[in-house]
Amino acid sequence: MSAAMKVAVLGCGVVGSQVVRLIGKQAAELSARIGAPLELAGVAVRRPKRHVDVDPALLTTDPMALVERRDVDLVVEVIGGIEPARSLILAAIACGKSVVTANKALLAEDGATLHAAARAAGVDLYYEASVAGAIPLLRPLRESLAGDHLRRVVGIVNGTTNYILSRMDATGAGFSEALEEATALGYAEADPSADVDGFDAAAKAAILAGLAFHTRVTAADVHREGIADVTAADVASAKAMGSTVKLLAICERVSAPGGDAVSVRVHPAMIPRTHPLAGVNDAFNAVFVEAESAGELMFYGRGAGGPPTASAVLGDLVAVARNRLAGAPGPGESAYADLPIRPMGLTDTSYHISMDVADRAGVLAAVATAFAEHGVSISTLRQEGRGDQATLVMVTHVAPDSALAATVDDLRKLDVVRGVTSVMRVEG
Amino acid sequence: MSAAMKVAVLGCGVVGSQVVRLIGKQAAELSARIGAPLELAGVAVRRPKRHVDVDPALLTTDPMALVERRDVDLVVEVIGGIEPARSLILAAIACGKSVVTANKALLAEDGATLHAAARAAGVDLYYEASVAGAIPLLRPLRESLAGDHLRRVVGIVNGTTNYILSRMDATGAGFSEALEEATALGYAEADPSADVDGFDAAAKAAILAGLAFHTRVTAADVHREGIADVTAADVASAKAMGSTVKLLAICERVSAPGGDAVSVRVHPAMIPRTHPLAGVNDAFNAVFVEAESAGELMFYGRGAGGPPTASAVLGDLVAVARNRLAGAPGPGESAYADLPIRPMGLTDTSYHISMDVADRAGVLAAVATAFAEHGVSISTLRQEGRGDQATLVMVTHVAPDSALAATVDDLRKLDVVRGVTSVMRVEG
Repeated sequence: MSAAMKVAVLGCGVVGSQVVRLIGKQAAELSARIGAPLELAGVAVRRPKRHVDVDPALLTTDPMALVERRDVDLVVEVIGGIEPARSLILAAIACGKSVVTANKALLAEDGATLHAAARAAGVDLYYEASVAGAIPLLRPLRESLAGDHLRRVVGIVNGTTNYILSRMDATGAGFSEALEEATALGYAEADPSADVDGFDAAAKAAILAGLAFHTRVTAADVHREGIADVTAADVASAKAMGSTVKLLAICERVSAPGGDAVSVRVHPAMIPRTHPLAGVNDAFNAVFVEAESAGELMFYGRGAGGPPTASAVLGDLVAVARNRLAGAPGPGESAYADLPIRPMGLTDTSYHISMDVADRAGVLAAVATAFAEHGVSISTLRQEGRGDQATLVMVTHVAPDSALAATVDDLRKLDVVRGVTSVMRVEG
Repeated sequence: MSAAMKVAVLGCGVVGSQVVRLIGKQAAELSARIGAPLELAGVAVRRPKRHVDVDPALLTTDPMALVERRDVDLVVEVIGGIEPARSLILAAIACGKSVVTANKALLAEDGATLHAAARAAGVDLYYEASVAGAIPLLRPLRESLAGDHLRRVVGIVNGTTNYILSRMDATGAGFSEALEEATALGYAEADPSADVDGFDAAAKAAILAGLAFHTRVTAADVHREGIADVTAADVASAKAMGSTVKLLAICERVSAPGGDAVSVRVHPAMIPRTHPLAGVNDAFNAVFVEAESAGELMFYGRGAGGPPTASAVLGDLVAVARNRLAGAPGPGESAYADLPIRPMGLTDTSYHISMDVADRAGVLAAVATAFAEHGVSISTLRQEGRGDQATLVMVTHVAPDSALAATVDDLRKLDVVRGVTSVMRVEG
């Protein structure tokens, strides 16, 4: 057996502490799988006294010194955020060390810089844990499906929002009430914005779209809408048509004038209850992949939490350690396809619109005219009278998103429309 | 870009013809992903005149000569069966060529010889397509979960039997009738034994168990029962308790005296309709994985067919080509854990037993005594009277399979038991 591979772990929170624990607990298994012992070289933390489970001799408050130590072969970054994570990863790469990270925000903001540095240095930068926790997803996309042509990746990739929407669906609660419950149970952070406003899902969507379509995609390329505006009325409206509301990350290869383009978006959508993603509840994640030859694939599992995320980190750690022993880095990213990003306004979507209208002659004609003026055609229509007022529920055919949004704006201005009570995109 | 990688394809049937077609159609994408052009060197077939879609200059009836050609870098074996596939693969490896195969029967019978040869020669032997068609499953088990401790892999891995059981469930048909329908639609072969008798699923179970538990497992180690004896009464009995019948491949790491062992089995089982595998119908495959840190994962997709299987072959082809360019083979198999195989008789299972009994005093006592004598305890019991006769439906707690089988034998001999109408294991 070869000389030991020494690992520096940066950060010892929910994920890092599990990585440290499992490197100890599974030492024999990991060594057998790598072909060399895997040893902890050090753990960088902010407050050493808090980490009573870790050998004090391993703890340091100077992550940069740890990264640069000569005896460190591999670096695990589980601090999160942009800085100091980026500087530490770049320093590790510059020292010829392979890096495993779970940092979706950094990869979605500046993955290109990191990947280029890793390629130039001939080291690995692996990040399976950054999307969908324990679910093997990035390696399948990058390697298993490398011989296929991907069309679409659609997933539930944020557990907090999925928990909130699952509760709203189950209890009829509004967003604030469900968020309070999620916070009380520890499913939502004190500042829930990264989750509920869709930032977390958008970072993951950027990573997925980049891998799926061999194109550089950043978080800024992702059209992002969170779930804070989802109302109990939206959820009830979805129920009435046999659907449920999910926050979806949708990455598509679409035809556009001048060739294919990539559309990437995160927004709540109504999906039929018969859709496999509709049954994904609480903190679980699931991702649907459509490929030309493989057809439809689905991956399902725990999207967050210490041990599941640590499982993904350790899988990557075994891989980069093996690659190092073999003397060649594994497959890196590629952006050769370099497809343009399709703006959201030009992306084809379909809307569910529910509105209260006056119940008199000419109302439907006025409403239908608003749709027609924007070239939007109606797929299904349901009208229910209630005294002098009626509820009109319509689902459109697909049309450019900007045409649909403009139609809704015009509907709101119509005299006969007393209120638009629910507008949401429809998928599947 | 590097010099071209030249591929020999052995066999040009349902899968091979798609591999040949896609190498042509996706040439630009494949080259970009590999970092070198991928070119067909030749296609070995038995009857060249049948393959009008393939450039005649590529066709040969001498697979061994093709394998040994100096300009061939990579070999795809999609002939199937033991010989000549084994000799051809070993010859390719001996010549220093990496091999991609979909041959589950050969891997399950003699994988050890092939893996040892590949390791000694420093080449890759990849076989994602051998289990569950297009579903990325072997790479996730081998690489993504390399940092975790696997407990259980349970799957529906044979589309033909799943189609037949889905039909029996949907229509109430018997096995023969459903098989006829499957044959007429092309879902079952003229000689359906490999599928309906569980040989195909058993080969896949051996491959999955070997990867999951880092232990050498062959088809002979797999306890195998097919679906030919599943009756309409079994399916109806399952329905009555909210379950459905599926042919499952079950690979478990179990505690045994003297340490952990591996239990591998393929048999029909009743699973609750709420179980995610219950909703996997027709020719789809799905595999559940339980790992210590990752928790429960599920993989779902098309388990067979030309393009889906070719997708998996091409994914492997891109990987072995990249590894060759990088100058180091990818991660190979490992059997370091070397766990013993637990015999089926000692494996804990649970039975559903339905029987017609006389409806008089003392019957239940006689039946209960038969269970007690073998140390089997009863989990649920339902009795329905019909005149002088009653139907007794029982589900046992888990017990060694041999104790359960012996109990059933004794029940059949009891005077008060007029007939045992359905016996089937229960999972999930």
